[in-house]
Amino acid sequence: MSSKPLNLAIVGLGYWGPTLLRALVEVEGVEVGWLCDSDKSRLERSRRRYPAARATTRIDDLLADPNVDAVVLATPVFTHFYLASRALTAGKHVFVEKPLATSSAEADQLARLAEMQERVLMCGHTFIYSPPVRAVKELLDKEALGQIYFVSSSRVNLGLHQSDISVVWDLGPHDFSILLYWFEEMPTTIRAVGRDSVVKGITDVAFVTMDFPSGILANVELSWLAPSKLRRTVIVGSEKMVVYDDVSVEPLRVFDHGVVYEDPETFGQYRLSYRTGDIVSPKVDTVEPVVVELEDFVAAVCAGASPQGHIELARNVTRLTEAAETSLEADGSLVSPARPTLLGRRP
Amino acid sequence: MSSKPLNLAIVGLGYWGPTLLRALVEVEGVEVGWLCDSDKSRLERSRRRYPAARATTRIDDLLADPNVDAVVLATPVFTHFYLASRALTAGKHVFVEKPLATSSAEADQLARLAEMQERVLMCGHTFIYSPPVRAVKELLDKEALGQIYFVSSSRVNLGLHQSDISVVWDLGPHDFSILLYWFEEMPTTIRAVGRDSVVKGITDVAFVTMDFPSGILANVELSWLAPSKLRRTVIVGSEKMVVYDDVSVEPLRVFDHGVVYEDPETFGQYRLSYRTGDIVSPKVDTVEPVVVELEDFVAAVCAGASPQGHIELARNVTRLTEAAETSLEADGSLVSPARPTLLGRRP
Amino acid sequence: MSSKPLNLAIVGLGYWGPTLLRALVEVEGVEVGWLCDSDKSRLERSRRRYPAARATTRIDDLLADPNVDAVVLATPVFTHFYLASRALTAGKHVFVEKPLATSSAEADQLARLAEMQERVLMCGHTFIYSPPVRAVKELLDKEALGQIYFVSSSRVNLGLHQSDISVVWDLGPHDFSILLYWFEEMPTTIRAVGRDSVVKGITDVAFVTMDFPSGILANVELSWLAPSKLRRTVIVGSEKMVVYDDVSVEPLRVFDHGVVYEDPETFGQYRLSYRTGDIVSPKVDTVEPVVVELEDFVAAVCAGASPQGHIELARNVTRLTEAAETSLEADGSLVSPARPTLLGRRP
Amino acid sequence: MSSKPLNLAIVGLGYWGPTLLRALVEVEGVEVGWLCDSDKSRLERSRRRYPAARATTRIDDLLADPNVDAVVLATPVFTHFYLASRALTAGKHVFVEKPLATSSAEADQLARLAEMQERVLMCGHTFIYSPPVRAVKELLDKEALGQIYFVSSSRVNLGLHQSDISVVWDLGPHDFSILLYWFEEMPTTIRAVGRDSVVKGITDVAFVTMDFPSGILANVELSWLAPSKLRRTVIVGSEKMVVYDDVSVEPLRVFDHGVVYEDPETFGQYRLSYRTGDIVSPKVDTVEPVVVELEDFVAAVCAGASPQGHIELARNVTRLTEAAETSLEADGSLVSPARPTLLGRRP
Repeated sequence: MSSKPLNLAIVGLGYWGPTLLRALVEVEGVEVGWLCDSDKSRLERSRRRYPAARATTRIDDLLADPNVDAVVLATPVFTHFYLASRALTAGKHVFVEKPLATSSAEADQLARLAEMQERVLMCGHTFIYSPPVRAVKELLDKEALGQIYFVSSSRVNLGLHQSDISVVWDLGPHDFSILLYWFEEMPTTIRAVGRDSVVKGITDVAFVTMDFPSGILANVELSWLAPSKLRRTVIVGSEKMVVYDDVSVEPLRVFDHGVVYEDPETFGQYRLSYRTGDIVSPKVDTVEPVVVELEDFVAAVCAGASPQGHIELARNVTRLTEAAETSLEADGSLVSPARPTLLGRRP
Repeated sequence: MSSKPLNLAIVGLGYWGPTLLRALVEVEGVEVGWLCDSDKSRLERSRRRYPAARATTRIDDLLADPNVDAVVLATPVFTHFYLASRALTAGKHVFVEKPLATSSAEADQLARLAEMQERVLMCGHTFIYSPPVRAVKELLDKEALGQIYFVSSSRVNLGLHQSDISVVWDLGPHDFSILLYWFEEMPTTIRAVGRDSVVKGITDVAFVTMDFPSGILANVELSWLAPSKLRRTVIVGSEKMVVYDDVSVEPLRVFDHGVVYEDPETFGQYRLSYRTGDIVSPKVDTVEPVVVELEDFVAAVCAGASPQGHIELARNVTRLTEAAETSLEADGSLVSPARPTLLGRRP
Repeated sequence: MSSKPLNLAIVGLGYWGPTLLRALVEVEGVEVGWLCDSDKSRLERSRRRYPAARATTRIDDLLADPNVDAVVLATPVFTHFYLASRALTAGKHVFVEKPLATSSAEADQLARLAEMQERVLMCGHTFIYSPPVRAVKELLDKEALGQIYFVSSSRVNLGLHQSDISVVWDLGPHDFSILLYWFEEMPTTIRAVGRDSVVKGITDVAFVTMDFPSGILANVELSWLAPSKLRRTVIVGSEKMVVYDDVSVEPLRVFDHGVVYEDPETFGQYRLSYRTGDIVSPKVDTVEPVVVELEDFVAAVCAGASPQGHIELARNVTRLTEAAETSLEADGSLVSPARPTLLGRRP
Repeated sequence: MSSKPLNLAIVGLGYWGPTLLRALVEVEGVEVGWLCDSDKSRLERSRRRYPAARATTRIDDLLADPNVDAVVLATPVFTHFYLASRALTAGKHVFVEKPLATSSAEADQLARLAEMQERVLMCGHTFIYSPPVRAVKELLDKEALGQIYFVSSSRVNLGLHQSDISVVWDLGPHDFSILLYWFEEMPTTIRAVGRDSVVKGITDVAFVTMDFPSGILANVELSWLAPSKLRRTVIVGSEKMVVYDDVSVEPLRVFDHGVVYEDPETFGQYRLSYRTGDIVSPKVDTVEPVVVELEDFVAAVCAGASPQGHIELARNVTRLTEAAETSLEADGSLVSPARPTLLGRRP
């Protein structure tokens, strides 16, 4: 695979596929061999922008092409397991959009299949490659924020309602992947309440809370119904507080604020004082996360090994989402994501 | 009580008391006869600003003064019941800071006492008098927002930790009073999770969710730990969405946004389209809520009758807060505020 | 030219050229026949994205190609006159980036040449096609703002310093084209002061003021040195005020604010009162201005006639910019843009 | 004057006077002996808030009172010279609201009178005491911003039109005092253009530019007509840039941004690169400037000596404002504030 460019096929050119295609063109050492979508007008639109690739409505064409090294899947969520399985079985490396699958059982099965086939399997958790998310990770790794007390996140905007999955499956994986990446621990419990406001049976707003083993409490608001787009996560630590706002020109702000607990001098009460120091918006890289992510995929394919820990994170995201959905259906009952059954309901 | 000014005593001159004092001076037909605080330096500071009133560290002095018509209480929460009871018993009208009491049993008892004594009892739910809150109420009353789907509220800032009550008792009553005022219905269930981050045993961050009979879902974030002050409530309706931001120069913004559900034309799927129209920041009054509130109290005293529905709202706020606290202690279990016991735990 | 697509060549693939190329691909009825840049690496980068076009470093190749209908020029400002002249002479229609030329004499000559050659000549004043700019024009046309008192505009950001022209020639044409489009009148006087902060001889910050015949006063701040990007224009009218902020998610805000002049009732003084009403962010289209602009060019070529008034506006922009530059060099002296000589210095 | 509190009289209780009165009550070692205003209802309103002071409509009453040590003047601008002269002549120390007088001649005369009478004369340039203004001064003093290229300031809001003075005399002194305090040099030239939009003869919007000996260029926008309040000053230096926004919760922001000029390596062109680093909002004090200012006045009276350089700054502010007004009347001609005559018009 040395100097010859990697031949990629992209399947699914609806909402996110064209972005992946545009990004793939930026990646060194890649050529896009096939464009595939069941919808001819979409296919035509992408071919116009990238006339060098072959276009097809049938995935079999590209799976049968021995020149294709890897397949990039940006199809509806319910097809992920089936299409990724077929591509892996056909000997292709696979990059599949998040979430990896619609259940943790399927996610685990895909991971095993990739291992057996000795093929790279990656899941598009793009936020892991976002510069402000990485900058927060660095702050956490050097314990700059002190003990983390809690996280409060809002990921809301108007649309796009999905017809097959809830907002928890659509937007939740973003927050779940970020939290797992940052804290490197799986929540012990998760709980979700929500409402199917517009389409009966499809939850379009949800409030999810999680408890982490280290004591961190996380609250995540997810919604397709909102007056304006919010992508805002607040992390409150004992030493500093961070606001990560993905739609701001200053996506990361570090507040040197905190509470100082003073031991009681005499027999009296303890005293608290409040510290408000400088606020810093550190410069963060302006690379486009999806490009870095695809470069990482290409590098993994060239190296013949999946990125360390990556697929485990994707499996845990599926597990968490599944647990949140279970809680949602049980009216907010506590669920353990390790084993996504309702707590306290075992016989 | 005709033309003679109403004689008021103010008890408690710590955090909020001086604000009430400053506002009282603005109200027509009022004279402040007494200033009272157990802390002499606080008392002195207020007297300097208002040298015409008598100052005392003992509440008995003013309760014994037959010239005193009414008492304004801005003391710690745990004293509300005791001091308000004494003042009512002494035949004074009483304005007490929120929350009315530390339990719904006490709140009910105070309400009964006021009725027996034929004295006005009012609780300082100032936000009910806030112009943007009232403007939202008008929008709701004329059904301008359509069906209300959900409410998401954040009331957070750095400090002030209370030593005797949780953040739910401190900040929760603001949101609870606003929601009860807007929707005129009591939640059927409430649930709260939180953490005592800084001082063991004192919850300083909490996420509260409520279900209302009409289907409204409400999520309220309360915290004394936050990088910056937020007082932001989003109301999502089927026709319009509203952002009420109490710290903004444009406290009310109405978004003519929504989702249009289109019935399937053929056998196919339904379709959703998104409508984003104008955004309007309606002009709202700039009166100071606390002044209007005190004017209302004075008018009630002059009329000899408590404002309609007011004390019932204050009692329901106490009931909701108590239920939230119960849920908090039971790790987020579902609680019915009508009868604040844990649901599903009855024998 | 009926159904056969229009064949375009694009010359100059530096900063703005790739944007034009990407937009051209969106326009119906267009094929890009040639890519041209003297820099081979730039050429290569664009070819990679658009492999269907022929690439060359020599403009003669495409001027000699009889299949080429029109040329799009995005080259350095000082080359505009020379290259546009050559293209028109070769019988091509021409779209040239703003400003049309480096002097009003050249601009006039190009306009005459286009007329003689019966070819369309258009200048890339993209902001004329910007939805919020057009929405303001509609407000002005129906006199919704009352009498216009003044305009205050800031167009600043960090970079990009030009090596051959001042910030007045680089950024000024944007504001000048917008003001001429809105008010349909040429300023009677213009004045500019500035500084060459970083590179001697190249003005990188300038403050420009203009007087319009109708009485409007305009102040424009232009700078390549700024902590953050600003594209903000305030229009103050007697009835309403407008903020057009090109980098905001709400690019247009209409303030129903004003001053009410009350005639003196008695012999006394007049009285003023201030009116602050609703603030509205009207919904504006989200079309990309550069696409609409190029569609307009293509439509003009197909119709065989330049858009009405367009080239006159471009010539007046050149005239205004030239006058501002003259004032800048004369230390802020008053200049008449109709005849860009210093006022009061005539013999 | 040791332990006996300083006895102050306050004259003028219109717009700013009540603020000074409220602040005076905060200052240690002060008692307010007299309240004075020609308008009885204003007088009554202030007396209600501060019932301990004597009230009068006649300034002679307090000037004749030997107990009065100092007089605080918050009267209309055109009365400053007359009233301050009378108070100084009566042997009182004088604090007069900005601007010191309506002409530099009067300002100079007042300064001489204070010196002769050996009384403290201070002018209320409150912004000099504003924590963010002082923090900028510290940055400038340690040359943290590098060479200062230019300053761009906007001081606009809706109202309050003055009936006797232009917006240049009303708002200009704020910016002029800040710039003189920061840079410690007098501009060599000043220029102002404006318009009397609402009331004929009273300029309500003006754009003022100044050149400083060190090369700094300053542009100041002043207006009583604006959709929203702006108090924003940008300072661009070769090393850092600062935004001072007086109405923001983060009034000071320091941008580690700049341009790097790289010398041409070969015979070729120079190169510029842009540096965008961290953005810091340093914590600034939250003291109220007017309180610190009055404390400074009281300290000066106690010490028997005017604050160093203070009255010279106030005189220079008057000189600058006068020069700006002269330019305004001469249609933006260049004026030297050292000698406020039109440049180039001398015989």
